[in-house]
Amino acid sequence: MSKPSIPPGTRDFSPEVMSKRKFILNTIESVYRRFGFMPLETPAMENMSTLTGKYGAEGDQLLFKILNSGDFLKDVNLNTQEARSVSSIIAEKGLRYDLTVPLARYVVMHRHEISFPFKRYQVQPVWRADRPQKGRYREFWQCDADVLGSDSLLCEADFIKIYQSVFKGLGLNDFEIRINHRKLLEAVAEKADALSHFKTITVIIDKADKIGFEGVALELSKIGLNEQQCRIILSLLEKRPLNNKTLDAIEMEFAGIETAYKAVNDLRALLSYCGAEAGQVVLDGSLARGLDYYTGCIFEVVPTSVKLGSISGGGRYDDLTGVFGLKEKVSGIGISFGIDRIYDVMSELNLFSNHIEAFTDILFCPMDESGILYCIPLADTLRNAGIKTEIYPAAAKLKKQLDYANSKQIPWAAIVGDNEIQSTQVMLKNLSSGEQICINADTIATHLGKVSL
Amino acid sequence: MSKPSIPPGTRDFSPEVMSKRKFILNTIESVYRRFGFMPLETPAMENMSTLTGKYGAEGDQLLFKILNSGDFLKDVNLNTQEARSVSSIIAEKGLRYDLTVPLARYVVMHRHEISFPFKRYQVQPVWRADRPQKGRYREFWQCDADVLGSDSLLCEADFIKIYQSVFKGLGLNDFEIRINHRKLLEAVAEKADALSHFKTITVIIDKADKIGFEGVALELSKIGLNEQQCRIILSLLEKRPLNNKTLDAIEMEFAGIETAYKAVNDLRALLSYCGAEAGQVVLDGSLARGLDYYTGCIFEVVPTSVKLGSISGGGRYDDLTGVFGLKEKVSGIGISFGIDRIYDVMSELNLFSNHIEAFTDILFCPMDESGILYCIPLADTLRNAGIKTEIYPAAAKLKKQLDYANSKQIPWAAIVGDNEIQSTQVMLKNLSSGEQICINADTIATHLGKVSL
Repeated sequence: MSKPSIPPGTRDFSPEVMSKRKFILNTIESVYRRFGFMPLETPAMENMSTLTGKYGAEGDQLLFKILNSGDFLKDVNLNTQEARSVSSIIAEKGLRYDLTVPLARYVVMHRHEISFPFKRYQVQPVWRADRPQKGRYREFWQCDADVLGSDSLLCEADFIKIYQSVFKGLGLNDFEIRINHRKLLEAVAEKADALSHFKTITVIIDKADKIGFEGVALELSKIGLNEQQCRIILSLLEKRPLNNKTLDAIEMEFAGIETAYKAVNDLRALLSYCGAEAGQVVLDGSLARGLDYYTGCIFEVVPTSVKLGSISGGGRYDDLTGVFGLKEKVSGIGISFGIDRIYDVMSELNLFSNHIEAFTDILFCPMDESGILYCIPLADTLRNAGIKTEIYPAAAKLKKQLDYANSKQIPWAAIVGDNEIQSTQVMLKNLSSGEQICINADTIATHLGKVSL
Repeated sequence: MSKPSIPPGTRDFSPEVMSKRKFILNTIESVYRRFGFMPLETPAMENMSTLTGKYGAEGDQLLFKILNSGDFLKDVNLNTQEARSVSSIIAEKGLRYDLTVPLARYVVMHRHEISFPFKRYQVQPVWRADRPQKGRYREFWQCDADVLGSDSLLCEADFIKIYQSVFKGLGLNDFEIRINHRKLLEAVAEKADALSHFKTITVIIDKADKIGFEGVALELSKIGLNEQQCRIILSLLEKRPLNNKTLDAIEMEFAGIETAYKAVNDLRALLSYCGAEAGQVVLDGSLARGLDYYTGCIFEVVPTSVKLGSISGGGRYDDLTGVFGLKEKVSGIGISFGIDRIYDVMSELNLFSNHIEAFTDILFCPMDESGILYCIPLADTLRNAGIKTEIYPAAAKLKKQLDYANSKQIPWAAIVGDNEIQSTQVMLKNLSSGEQICINADTIATHLGKVSL
């Protein structure tokens, strides 16, 4: 039999990796909860009719489709049909591509039971049939929060505070929250007298981080903009701190352009709600992620001490449920953390070390069968006190037992031979320092510096 | 556009349901961790070569297959092939059917990095193309723990303690841990002089819970066993408490039958390791789940105050990794909790009420824009103290704001009008009693009976 393997672009998460991922996920979840977000989970499989047409033509190509069970070929004329049209008949279900379309589908199905504003968070894997490469997976986790049914800028302010709290909780201090406004992007195009090129312009300026301002100027000229138009656009791309001075300046620069007023008003309200918290927020005129989708503020968070791209993004949208034909508009705002990217950033900056608990706090090492029986009630007591405890499940040689403890990075061993049993003690060994002392068996918890949890 | 829906046999988990599920999952996970089990996660998609042939012919039929991306029909001669043979060409990946085969696959791939005994837990969904019906889903969660690479009965004893701790943690006190031993089943067939019918007999007696002893006798006679043989078998099916008296009796009943000794020896060791904990354990001679698979002790947990089937099962196996061609045998033992079943039992017994936290502890209700600005720093302070806090994101009518709080079962509202702002107070309203008092804004946390978390 050939060696087993896993599909390209998928991953096993070993216990060591899981500990770190759980630290990230738990940190994000606990912050979401502090802001009143509620958990939601949706099925891995959605009907293809739910998924198709929601992510553009390219997205449709990246959907994983699930073969119908049973005699799935019965309705197919195999002689005349091509792969694409066959697949819509033989695969009626597909794997979730993101968490936003399932949220919209859920809200449409349950809108009469939901009280708005609906604040939900959702942490689940999504699947995309992308070409696997470094840092890009076919199965990866999204970690979303959305507020549906409120147009208050207080929601934007909450998300900025959520960013601050999450990254503080992760110990990731060097980051920048970039913000822009869809209407400010429109105002740029209008000021440059190039509104007819609006979409193309935003696609180009969104690349400023990668190709630089010269690259942007070159591409803008290629689509026919003259030197003055390019200059106007470039002058508005510089990053500036989000404060009243910046907003005053923008109001001057865009004097007479109506769309800019709406954006500046939103940003002023956001600023008044954020207070001092806006310190880490930068207004980035070149930020334009997911333009087809966002209608108000747009967010992106980037680590500043490593170059690894954005670790979160989001923004405000006008009409989430329109794709399912719902007439009443359900507007909202949402963000998503990129767990894999955050993991990579934290690994590179060595930020995990202080946060990861041991899998096991103490290993009992019995030297014979009577040692095992001696250890059992001691282990029970420690576990009841919340201490993660194992008994090595055989009277193996001490070296073998300690090797096991070391490989699992267990900090303490309690060695039990005949002497210890007779004196109701254990030999407590600190496995990082190598120090060991004989102590009374009922004082182990105290020596571990643990109190009852 | 037609109304959106989800595939049959799948579920959305609303916030209310998620809270209860999380309580169950967190309880199980924290117990697993106290016993030194480490988390593992594997991909939703496995290669079909990993999955096929591991679950019997019926299981193979229930695998969900994922259509290859791109031009998936290029190697198919559509004129001559049937659905089944086509599917193996056009779908090279499938969805995980359980967590055991992925564990075996992981251990084979990583056996040189793993220190044994390897104690892992895994909580992930699995998918089966079963006909959906009440209580049977196409996507459901498994919650497994296994110890690989140890044949000590201490592992069995740990699992019995894990059962005790988990159900105590869940507040589910009426349950029975049923245990049997594969070799005891063999001894029964041998004593009845019907070893050649061994597998059929175990399939029949495993149904004793459903069809009763008369039903078992009838089916045994149908396969050609005579009255005396039936009587011998039936006499051994009665449930008995697991204690030394029972084991002495079994030793007498099976005098001279070698396989019974091995079973009794194992059960004696288990008993000595369990101590008083064996009180809730019942030796059930008719228990034979997963016979092809288990080779030693077999477990099942059944709630005794509601009839809803088993809520956990497991057992010892000799050779988990043999299916992947590994020559060194990796023996082990594992259990799995049925989350959906536990959820149903706890709902029926109304056991959730005391365990479910509010989504939000307090809602600030501002009466106008200056109220919003007044609430923001107060909300920040409460969140920093770990209190789940929301500000209603608009100066809507008080009734609307309180309706929102009630629908989300928020226990407290802090109402802020002009008077409160001028006196730096809030009107704190208990939403279950209706009582309200004016308090100083900096004493909210104290009034909520919360201390800094």
